[in-house]
Amino acid sequence: MATSTTKTGQPLDRAQLEPVLRRRMFYTPSFEIYGGERGLYDYGPPGCALQANVVDLWRKHFVLEEDMLEVDCTMLTPEAVLKTSGHVDKFADWMCKDPKSGEIFRADHLVEQVLEARLKADKDARGQTIVVDEAKEARKKKKIKDTKIEKLDDAVVQEYEETLAKIDNYGGDELGELIKKFDIKGPTTGAELDPPRAFNLMFQTQIGPSAEKPNGYLRPETAQGQFLNFQKLLEFNQQSMPFASASIGKSFRNEISPRSGLLRVREFLMAEIEHFVDPEGGKKHPRFEDVKDVKLTLLNRKTQLAGSTKPDVLTIGEAVSTGIVDNETLGYFMVRIQDFLLKLGIDHSKLRFRQHMANEMAHYAADCWDAELFTTYGWIECVGCADRSAYDLTVHANKTGAPLVVRETRAEPLVIEEYQIDLERKKLGPKFRKDAKSVEAAVDALSQELREKLSLELEKTGKIEVQTPGVGSGTTELDKDLIKIEKRKRTEHVREYTPNVIEPSFGIGRILYSLMEHVYWTREGDGARAVLSFPPSVAPTKVLLVPLSSHQDFKPFIKKLTTRLRRIGVSNKVDDSSASIGKRYARNDELGTPFGITIDFQTVKDGSLTLRERDSTKQVRASEDDIIAAVKALVDGEETWEDISKRLPLFEGQDLD
Amino acid sequence: MATSTTKTGQPLDRAQLEPVLRRRMFYTPSFEIYGGERGLYDYGPPGCALQANVVDLWRKHFVLEEDMLEVDCTMLTPEAVLKTSGHVDKFADWMCKDPKSGEIFRADHLVEQVLEARLKADKDARGQTIVVDEAKEARKKKKIKDTKIEKLDDAVVQEYEETLAKIDNYGGDELGELIKKFDIKGPTTGAELDPPRAFNLMFQTQIGPSAEKPNGYLRPETAQGQFLNFQKLLEFNQQSMPFASASIGKSFRNEISPRSGLLRVREFLMAEIEHFVDPEGGKKHPRFEDVKDVKLTLLNRKTQLAGSTKPDVLTIGEAVSTGIVDNETLGYFMVRIQDFLLKLGIDHSKLRFRQHMANEMAHYAADCWDAELFTTYGWIECVGCADRSAYDLTVHANKTGAPLVVRETRAEPLVIEEYQIDLERKKLGPKFRKDAKSVEAAVDALSQELREKLSLELEKTGKIEVQTPGVGSGTTELDKDLIKIEKRKRTEHVREYTPNVIEPSFGIGRILYSLMEHVYWTREGDGARAVLSFPPSVAPTKVLLVPLSSHQDFKPFIKKLTTRLRRIGVSNKVDDSSASIGKRYARNDELGTPFGITIDFQTVKDGSLTLRERDSTKQVRASEDDIIAAVKALVDGEETWEDISKRLPLFEGQDLD
Repeated sequence: MATSTTKTGQPLDRAQLEPVLRRRMFYTPSFEIYGGERGLYDYGPPGCALQANVVDLWRKHFVLEEDMLEVDCTMLTPEAVLKTSGHVDKFADWMCKDPKSGEIFRADHLVEQVLEARLKADKDARGQTIVVDEAKEARKKKKIKDTKIEKLDDAVVQEYEETLAKIDNYGGDELGELIKKFDIKGPTTGAELDPPRAFNLMFQTQIGPSAEKPNGYLRPETAQGQFLNFQKLLEFNQQSMPFASASIGKSFRNEISPRSGLLRVREFLMAEIEHFVDPEGGKKHPRFEDVKDVKLTLLNRKTQLAGSTKPDVLTIGEAVSTGIVDNETLGYFMVRIQDFLLKLGIDHSKLRFRQHMANEMAHYAADCWDAELFTTYGWIECVGCADRSAYDLTVHANKTGAPLVVRETRAEPLVIEEYQIDLERKKLGPKFRKDAKSVEAAVDALSQELREKLSLELEKTGKIEVQTPGVGSGTTELDKDLIKIEKRKRTEHVREYTPNVIEPSFGIGRILYSLMEHVYWTREGDGARAVLSFPPSVAPTKVLLVPLSSHQDFKPFIKKLTTRLRRIGVSNKVDDSSASIGKRYARNDELGTPFGITIDFQTVKDGSLTLRERDSTKQVRASEDDIIAAVKALVDGEETWEDISKRLPLFEGQDLD
Repeated sequence: MATSTTKTGQPLDRAQLEPVLRRRMFYTPSFEIYGGERGLYDYGPPGCALQANVVDLWRKHFVLEEDMLEVDCTMLTPEAVLKTSGHVDKFADWMCKDPKSGEIFRADHLVEQVLEARLKADKDARGQTIVVDEAKEARKKKKIKDTKIEKLDDAVVQEYEETLAKIDNYGGDELGELIKKFDIKGPTTGAELDPPRAFNLMFQTQIGPSAEKPNGYLRPETAQGQFLNFQKLLEFNQQSMPFASASIGKSFRNEISPRSGLLRVREFLMAEIEHFVDPEGGKKHPRFEDVKDVKLTLLNRKTQLAGSTKPDVLTIGEAVSTGIVDNETLGYFMVRIQDFLLKLGIDHSKLRFRQHMANEMAHYAADCWDAELFTTYGWIECVGCADRSAYDLTVHANKTGAPLVVRETRAEPLVIEEYQIDLERKKLGPKFRKDAKSVEAAVDALSQELREKLSLELEKTGKIEVQTPGVGSGTTELDKDLIKIEKRKRTEHVREYTPNVIEPSFGIGRILYSLMEHVYWTREGDGARAVLSFPPSVAPTKVLLVPLSSHQDFKPFIKKLTTRLRRIGVSNKVDDSSASIGKRYARNDELGTPFGITIDFQTVKDGSLTLRERDSTKQVRASEDDIIAAVKALVDGEETWEDISKRLPLFEGQDLD
């Protein structure tokens, strides 16, 4: 696996980035003074502002731009809902217990770690160098200690490699067999492990005081709340199709063994869209024409099956027309997802769309593509874009009887020619008594094919035999007096259908973490200082105000600037600490603040200010009005720093260190 | 209790408002197709947009305006944290079970309902009319059926009334006694009730796969996460005091018996501020001067004790200087809370601040004022503003050993004269062996008073006796060879203190519901149509675009307008349904959309548009540029409709019905 590099081409060392993110309080382990709780993180002020800006951009990019119906549903969810959706039975991972130490391992991860450790030991024994996957290394260091440097048989190596390639696809029994077959023991005790057991990943709880046992869960996704409100949303949308609902909120997943920092946590922010579309007519999208020439980096199923990770770069128009991407609506959202990620500052060269393999998808899904971002942890799934077909609406409708369907007046009434059956009910009752209803139901259920056959028989012999399970011998004879079968025409004016759902689903925390890696680099010289080059639109703070010193004369300028910037909606912070201007800027480079305004003695004389840009550290000097206008234009994305630095006089003044 | 009226003075009938809010999907019961789950509500598109706008305003008004440090902490919380905070032991209500039916009642509510029903029956018997509290009526209708119309003894009436006045203050045993004394039985069965039992209101869950029993809770408030991060936040703030943290997020409360719609729910959005302040120097606030002349409606403790609900209207300056409000910081935030609520559109005449009675407050609290809003459910606590003293930081520091304190270099070093003790450790060890440490600890813990006394005794007799619990007989003799006590001077350069916390805590859902009541009124004529007069800043959608018909010629105008409005950040919706313009506007009056732009055949001719204002239904007609500029000025609050209607020509054109 390739190692990650920064946007300036430096090797990206997570061991250097993480302390910066922690020190600047982008995020921090929750409950740290209580020893912490694995898989839970708090966002500090800059992380929180970054998150709010990303969510705001998401809402503008999707909800407002596409007129989606946003809903905010509860996280607490009754058991019945998640039973129907399949989560109670299937949303589980396999865990293994070490009976000696009581330790619990995720079975697939354990097999993976042990086999990888053995393969590495084998390579060491063979004297081969390997490119190291840091994340896996770190894991191994922790758990799998002192694997003996031992050469393996070639056949064993091959078997291990094949197992690893398929590691995501094994069930509990298979994992149990692998553990036995490969003689995998408790890593710290060497004890034989208990067989894998399913562990449901939902947090269970008790709603209300009268429940005798847990009767609810914290939602694993925001989607179900949207499905349950389908009817009301369709009504709100004045019965007009297609439409999308959207939701931003926390979801939960009780990871067996959380790892990889912000990437695998137990409580996380999601933003999900459920786009409801008519399954007939190829799931076209009215705006597909606008995006069809946009290129995407696609790693399709076929390429993966061939064992390659080399993606194709195709326009979405080509991808849909050649069937690589299933339909226009799915393709349209893939482009919109890419637009969104690039707006945030995601590095285009570290973005790809990977198609799910057939066995990765839920059985009902028609197609699924993940937007993956490359990080020091490898390629990470950050946005899923799935065609969930009509599955969810159908199961909830079947369970509750709620009509989760669209009823549409047909432009052209549909004329159907079919075999219809008339029963002589007056005679049926007296003849079959208590069985009359069962006979009627059996007749009603007859297929068109059978009706055709039976109508011929009835005409020929004057009677027919019908399968009637539970009535008499299971077959009932009906004659001409009782039944008539005729081919007739029927006109349908209303069409009823269950919409299909295209679901773009964003893991906001994963996107935030990947973004922080993508915008991170270090400035050469004076100790390689960290810089986070967030675009102005998502940067936690837009402008830092820096008075040269704590001199009284600077205070009124600071106050006025703060007020003016706030009025035009530009978030700003004052740093009037006693540190040198250089140090104060360095601190804010780590916080990703794109612009800095210095107030110095020249300001007191003529009101002029200097404006500094984070990435180039270049400054311009101009009047307050000009500087404010420049900041506004930069933050709104109407001008670039290049524009500004051509327009306003450059300044090379104060010694900043 | 007074009944509620709309802003136009009409009687406010919740039975009319609620169906509007449900139909327009401001909110809707969660999981309705599964029969619903009490105390859980989803927000539909307009409710969600309203909530997002209110949160956005809150963030601007508090976090940005006051430079607060926003954090986003997890909802999942380990048990140890909430054990320390006191929630595991004390965050409970008393519940009563009817053993016959299995029904569960909140004990205080049950007593309240029964006594109120009996008092009402008594008044009916006496032929007195009473002003009806609708909410309580509704409750009684449901639960307490057919209370016999029966006259009570005057003494009983008085006893009931006294009990009701104190109903919030009874513990479980007292409630049990009241139930026996007043012969209160299971309302549906007439059975004797089980004694009240504490029911903890936190949702319990199991974090991770290895827990044998529940080991965590969903947080009951966002505050604890902020306290636990205090040290990191102080560091982030470069050790500078005072400062405030803030947090917006869901909290949970497993209500025994949810009621009153959005006002008492099991999952709710909170926005909380923890302002950390030096307890010395009277908790002054640097901006108090700016707000001291603002008037507040205050219902203080003394007035309430005198049995009155008539508030005083005072400036916050007077209230603080006379000690009615405990300190400047508390007073400053009360003004800021009022500012915020009025910005949202809260009716000033339906807002008051009520001081907590001594027995309502947590024992550590110094003072607490609730901002209450008047609704059809009576006065509702929507914002709490409490002085939590140093309680939370102290208990967490004691439990974990984390230094949740501020260390400040003293401007003037502090010279302290005190009795210091020197122990001859070399002799102490051999003499007391395993008890040596206990003896040393006991000596170290001696107070200054005792040290003075003992020093005299030591001088006089050459030996002293010290209490040493657990060592020998509990008293240990020490002589001159072992101990020396002297009065000496010590200079302290650093001051260490635990900050006090002022906590404004907002229940966003309650504010939203109250706001919807405050802005609701009905337009007379043609069937009294509902209008929700949200101010433009919080209205779910700002502008409705209405083409006269679905004529092709209107489409390019709509497209252009949508794009232009979106670019200036003004949310808008198109309604090109076939309903009459009047009907379309009526629908959007219910949604609270403040402005409407009509596109008609005149538009096609000369590009002019009409702009309609929701409350007056007046229209102006002008060029596209003028109309867009007017909308922007209205939404930004730079001009009022009155300004616009003076500036642009009035239009009385299309028949809207």
